[in-house]
Amino acid sequence: MSKIISGFSKLSKEEKIDWLAKNYFNNQPEIIQTIKQYWNVDEKLQQLHDDFIENTISNFYMPYGVAPNFVINGREYVVPMVVEESSVVAAASKVAKYWSTRGGFKTKVISTTKIGQVHFLYTGNKKDLITYFQQTKTELYAATAPITKNMEKRGGGILDIELIDKTDKLANYYQLHVTFETKDSMGANFINSCLEAIAKRFQKEDIEIIMSILSNYVPDCVVRAEVSCPVADLGGENPEKFAYKFEQAVKIAQIEPYRAVTHNKGIMNGIDAVVLATGNDFRAIESGAHAYAARNGEYTSLTHCEVSDGIFKFWIEIPLALGTVGGLTALHPMAKLSLDMMQQPSARTLMQIIAAAGLAQNFAALRALTTKGIQHGHMKMHLMNILNQHHATPAEKEAVAAYFESRTVSHSAVVEKLNSLRKPSINWVNFSDEKDIRNQLSKLTNDMQPAFGKMNAQQMIEHLSAVTQIANGNWKIDVFVSDEKTARRKPFLNTDGELQIGFKAPFLTEEPTPVKFSSISEAIDDLAQQVQLFFEVYENNPERTAIHPFFGELDFKYWKKFQVKHFTHHFKQFGLV
Amino acid sequence: MSKIISGFSKLSKEEKIDWLAKNYFNNQPEIIQTIKQYWNVDEKLQQLHDDFIENTISNFYMPYGVAPNFVINGREYVVPMVVEESSVVAAASKVAKYWSTRGGFKTKVISTTKIGQVHFLYTGNKKDLITYFQQTKTELYAATAPITKNMEKRGGGILDIELIDKTDKLANYYQLHVTFETKDSMGANFINSCLEAIAKRFQKEDIEIIMSILSNYVPDCVVRAEVSCPVADLGGENPEKFAYKFEQAVKIAQIEPYRAVTHNKGIMNGIDAVVLATGNDFRAIESGAHAYAARNGEYTSLTHCEVSDGIFKFWIEIPLALGTVGGLTALHPMAKLSLDMMQQPSARTLMQIIAAAGLAQNFAALRALTTKGIQHGHMKMHLMNILNQHHATPAEKEAVAAYFESRTVSHSAVVEKLNSLRKPSINWVNFSDEKDIRNQLSKLTNDMQPAFGKMNAQQMIEHLSAVTQIANGNWKIDVFVSDEKTARRKPFLNTDGELQIGFKAPFLTEEPTPVKFSSISEAIDDLAQQVQLFFEVYENNPERTAIHPFFGELDFKYWKKFQVKHFTHHFKQFGLV
Repeated sequence: MSKIISGFSKLSKEEKIDWLAKNYFNNQPEIIQTIKQYWNVDEKLQQLHDDFIENTISNFYMPYGVAPNFVINGREYVVPMVVEESSVVAAASKVAKYWSTRGGFKTKVISTTKIGQVHFLYTGNKKDLITYFQQTKTELYAATAPITKNMEKRGGGILDIELIDKTDKLANYYQLHVTFETKDSMGANFINSCLEAIAKRFQKEDIEIIMSILSNYVPDCVVRAEVSCPVADLGGENPEKFAYKFEQAVKIAQIEPYRAVTHNKGIMNGIDAVVLATGNDFRAIESGAHAYAARNGEYTSLTHCEVSDGIFKFWIEIPLALGTVGGLTALHPMAKLSLDMMQQPSARTLMQIIAAAGLAQNFAALRALTTKGIQHGHMKMHLMNILNQHHATPAEKEAVAAYFESRTVSHSAVVEKLNSLRKPSINWVNFSDEKDIRNQLSKLTNDMQPAFGKMNAQQMIEHLSAVTQIANGNWKIDVFVSDEKTARRKPFLNTDGELQIGFKAPFLTEEPTPVKFSSISEAIDDLAQQVQLFFEVYENNPERTAIHPFFGELDFKYWKKFQVKHFTHHFKQFGLV
Repeated sequence: MSKIISGFSKLSKEEKIDWLAKNYFNNQPEIIQTIKQYWNVDEKLQQLHDDFIENTISNFYMPYGVAPNFVINGREYVVPMVVEESSVVAAASKVAKYWSTRGGFKTKVISTTKIGQVHFLYTGNKKDLITYFQQTKTELYAATAPITKNMEKRGGGILDIELIDKTDKLANYYQLHVTFETKDSMGANFINSCLEAIAKRFQKEDIEIIMSILSNYVPDCVVRAEVSCPVADLGGENPEKFAYKFEQAVKIAQIEPYRAVTHNKGIMNGIDAVVLATGNDFRAIESGAHAYAARNGEYTSLTHCEVSDGIFKFWIEIPLALGTVGGLTALHPMAKLSLDMMQQPSARTLMQIIAAAGLAQNFAALRALTTKGIQHGHMKMHLMNILNQHHATPAEKEAVAAYFESRTVSHSAVVEKLNSLRKPSINWVNFSDEKDIRNQLSKLTNDMQPAFGKMNAQQMIEHLSAVTQIANGNWKIDVFVSDEKTARRKPFLNTDGELQIGFKAPFLTEEPTPVKFSSISEAIDDLAQQVQLFFEVYENNPERTAIHPFFGELDFKYWKKFQVKHFTHHFKQFGLV
């Protein structure tokens, strides 16, 4: 078990990265470069982010976008969104604008109670337990006084402690079920500390505490957001038909779990984006929302739609346990900025903004699905992502986008189109195919003009052999390539790029080396022999490396990559590919 | 509706930020600074990230950590985790190490089928629909051929198309229920494109297509991960008791939804961290997992535990629809790095690694909960976060951490302790309290020695008045403070910091200005009058600003902040505070 390590957490960040590079990346310097290119130039700021969690080695960039034009209860908001999925911010922005001229979002908080439980087993008589609970209840409250002091100043605290008998579900299992109001804080630490203090005080023979922990199921911390307008005002070609299909789509999500899950997933695209942007915990929000969707025994939609008396009405009810103080909200500068952007909302206000963002997202999804289909808009974004992935130029992007206006986007089709634009494509030379190499090179004569450079054909063949000899170790050249240069240059070998015309390694003389052999045919024999040797020496010793005069220390894998590029470069020089 | 904007998405990034600053941040320059400090110095790299979504203005840093020592089916892994919550990576690392000496994680993929549906209404005769479906089925497959071509090469494609009657749940509602195998891609775009092609072909009188969309509910794309060992090998003081309590804790999560939601939330802490790190979509994973947890009518635990015949066994079964190709996986350099770190796993292998990460997280949570409580470890991290938030020095961190070894951590208690260490605390002067100011200053005589500087008492009082006159506009001084300097200096006024001893604004002469009034008492009257005037001119004109010779243009709010610091500074000079 060579890669099992003790004391990893105690290593410095640099040491952690070195260990990773050595054990999981074959010491590739470009890995370290990738990790470090995401470090902030401000060392203190980076330290702040490093300290949020453990074993931090870098930052994972999540795009931070904004959706303007949200009108919520008559007030304008720009909503910050952190999400890696394309279309989410665009959809939110469009729908916000759309409803801004139709009365905006109407929201209200229905309730804000949170739950925590002390889970315990009790083997004694139930009546004795009830008596003990009633006698101790005041002291349970008292036990939390040092913790609740500040929360009570802000109007929060423990609302109630109940004893619940769950022995019908699990032998001897009871709970202290505690309800809390935590005001502007999400309250996880507060609730857990209270529960542990309560559990500590709740000691009696036959009581075995199993655990004390808050619940992320918060069916009494619920917010509602709604949009509505006359059907005629919905716009488009046929607003009645639009309203009808939209309503049917919501009804389907209400009765079909396969659909409901994705329907709600789309809502959560909008919700989580704001949850993340404000430094809240999206796992807590997700678990609470989906459990709420399943509360009546079958998983169902979180949104509802009604079209009646000519009025279109669409609303969401969702549990959201959020904080605007504590946790990361003030600690992460961008989370703080998000809250400032929304005019420092209370937790109650933030619940309403986030519910509106979720409803907007669902409206956008259903509108797209019931009209031109989800793929239309999505594929446009998808197309751009593929183009970026393949480093398309602005001109290429325009050409490919025009081509796919009326065609189905798929990854392979886009790449195919892009490649066709990029022709002439490269026919990489398979230098290990001796027969083919001999066959190609034998076409050459020394009176042929090279497309670039000064070598004649035989000099070129002997040059390929000479460089192969460097790899093989039977031509020792005195070169030094610094680690820093190697780190910058070597990644090129992993790309599809060709060696540039005019590229010349620094150890080469200005004028071609005089020929060594008496004919092209002898030079070819020599080259073939060196290539054979190349495979032998590296296959016999897979750990072997040799210094390349430009790229630095290369192993077998990288030498092969280099050879492909190098052979191709010189085959092109003489028009062989 | 002044803040409603058209064409926002078409603005450049700089223009978007300017609009935001103007409309939602009162043009505070520090806002723009915060946004831009997160931009990558490499413009091309930043462009790549900007293009992932729409209206991108910056990056939201999520900490990227690593958990070493995972042994899964005998192979070692280091698992990349992107998560903002403290303790998650530490927990994963500890549990991975723990199980690495107890046989590691045993995982297997149970199934990998995904679902998509064409939802439609049909008002005709059911038999006709069945006939039509059977006649058309081959053509439905054929309609997807251009899309499935490449997927089929990789061994995936459409597995089946079924017609399902849902009219008992909703009038006229039927589905085409399509099952897919998408191999190493998550397959969302592939599935949606297939479904839309199928829907386009499935045209008949009386059929109204409502929508065509994949499902994130994937109960047939499930992976299992398990750990087990003899109870005696669990270690600790009393392994039998540990195993018993642990098993009870899992059983409670199985029968009590309030607990199950949080139990599963903890699992998702581990799952989502790896999902994010690999560029997968955590909303899809979350919705699928929680719906699966609710599949039998009551929301329940995703993990299971059995202690029998002296063997402790703990396992998870969870649906995970993941991709290792497509989407962000190759596009986001850190997502690509994550996959490389795990030796470029197939989607099946990634399912297993992620299931192990989820199981590890749950093991850590339950172990903490059933032994010393969740708050013990969590509060240590929480403590560090609070200390960082208040810019604690290493020495302060050590002192506060030692203090809280045996005490309950709460935000207020930590701040209180930190402040006590930082004494002598600052008694800010309330400069608007005329009575108090007069009372304090009247104690001064001109033979008193200042603690620093060269002014005597009366000169100091006249200096406070003079600076107040700058704010009031009745002392015009010729100063220019560049925006860049203002941006750097002004944020100081929002801090708890004091003006430094020896600090001198550039417009002040080296030697004190000669006194203007004949006595300290007259100087006090003048100061009191200027302070009164100060409140009058700004309260009459809330938009008013005046140039401060060091901090630049300040409004009422900032001038007040400055005055508090300035008065306090000079009151200290003469020992008044």
